[in-house]
Amino acid sequence: MSEILQQLAQVLEQRKQESADQSYVASLYAKGLDHILKKVGEEATETVIAAKGGDKDQIVYETADLWFHSMVMLADQGLGPDDVLRELQRRFGLSGLEEKAQRDK
Amino acid sequence: MSEILQQLAQVLEQRKQESADQSYVASLYAKGLDHILKKVGEEATETVIAAKGGDKDQIVYETADLWFHSMVMLADQGLGPDDVLRELQRRFGLSGLEEKAQRDK
Amino acid sequence: MSEILQQLAQVLEQRKQESADQSYVASLYAKGLDHILKKVGEEATETVIAAKGGDKDQIVYETADLWFHSMVMLADQGLGPDDVLRELQRRFGLSGLEEKAQRDK
Amino acid sequence: MSEILQQLAQVLEQRKQESADQSYVASLYAKGLDHILKKVGEEATETVIAAKGGDKDQIVYETADLWFHSMVMLADQGLGPDDVLRELQRRFGLSGLEEKAQRDK
Repeated sequence: MSEILQQLAQVLEQRKQESADQSYVASLYAKGLDHILKKVGEEATETVIAAKGGDKDQIVYETADLWFHSMVMLADQGLGPDDVLRELQRRFGLSGLEEKAQRDK
Repeated sequence: MSEILQQLAQVLEQRKQESADQSYVASLYAKGLDHILKKVGEEATETVIAAKGGDKDQIVYETADLWFHSMVMLADQGLGPDDVLRELQRRFGLSGLEEKAQRDK
Repeated sequence: MSEILQQLAQVLEQRKQESADQSYVASLYAKGLDHILKKVGEEATETVIAAKGGDKDQIVYETADLWFHSMVMLADQGLGPDDVLRELQRRFGLSGLEEKAQRDK
Repeated sequence: MSEILQQLAQVLEQRKQESADQSYVASLYAKGLDHILKKVGEEATETVIAAKGGDKDQIVYETADLWFHSMVMLADQGLGPDDVLRELQRRFGLSGLEEKAQRDK
């Protein structure tokens, strides 16, 4: 499960080569940053509404939408999930080595 | 980098045993879902403002805040990042096997 | 200019009698509270983006969208602009008598 | 009730002459546009949470917060409620004359 964000980032990068009528992501890039940010705000609100509603499937669905659109924003700005994960790692003193440790077993 | 969200989820789970004056996360749980959701909305707005500002460090910082607080919401609701990553995997037809494949090399 | 919100509230009330394909407001009521709240969040984000953009016409346009959709939410909940104005009046110690005073001149 | 927004706009204008430690509004101006916009986004989220909660007093309270902070943003940008009301009047074909008509009775 742990490589999904990195794989998704690769997909988002590939979409930069496609035309707006070929994929939803390419159409977001074409509409520009303001439109992408509008989607981030929209999905955040839908996540809040879903959490207040209490349906777990809906919460997962809307949070996935929120993370997805924030990853499109990152890609649009030349950034990626590893930049964000590195910041989280730094804040929480996480080792980032657990995966390697498990691999070495 | 890929195990950071799972490690953070473990930290968020441990914080459920702590008292509100011991950690910020425990204080969020104590204040309840509405307060956590308020933070999700707040951080989404700050992410939008940062992206409009164009400072890459600020964008990464605010997106980390957004993902972090949405993970606190997930933990509060008995959910975790793997639920969201599984949904993203399903949508984008990602294999989730790339990590394993690389490990087997 | 000062009676616009009250007039708009009357229009929103009348729209409750119409069918969803007759007017945008009737379609919002038909879609329900979650949809109306989604619009409130969306328009708040667009107001933030417009203000960061700095175009005054755009700021006015998006703030009008935000106030409008929050008034649809109020109407849907059996509330109206005077409830909100009364709260603002209370907080700021505003007289609400200025209009009357001018009328009496 | 109808002059409240205009009276509040006058108060917000006066606050521009005060120092940040004299009033909350002056402190918002001093912190700058990004901080004011953060408050707009925050109050929009709180309005959504209140509406999902269903407590009418809370809905009125949070909507007042939302309108108030959007008026601070307008004032900061050299705009005011009449700009927004004029836009709403234009969209809905409202006369703006009802008040005058009633006054003339």
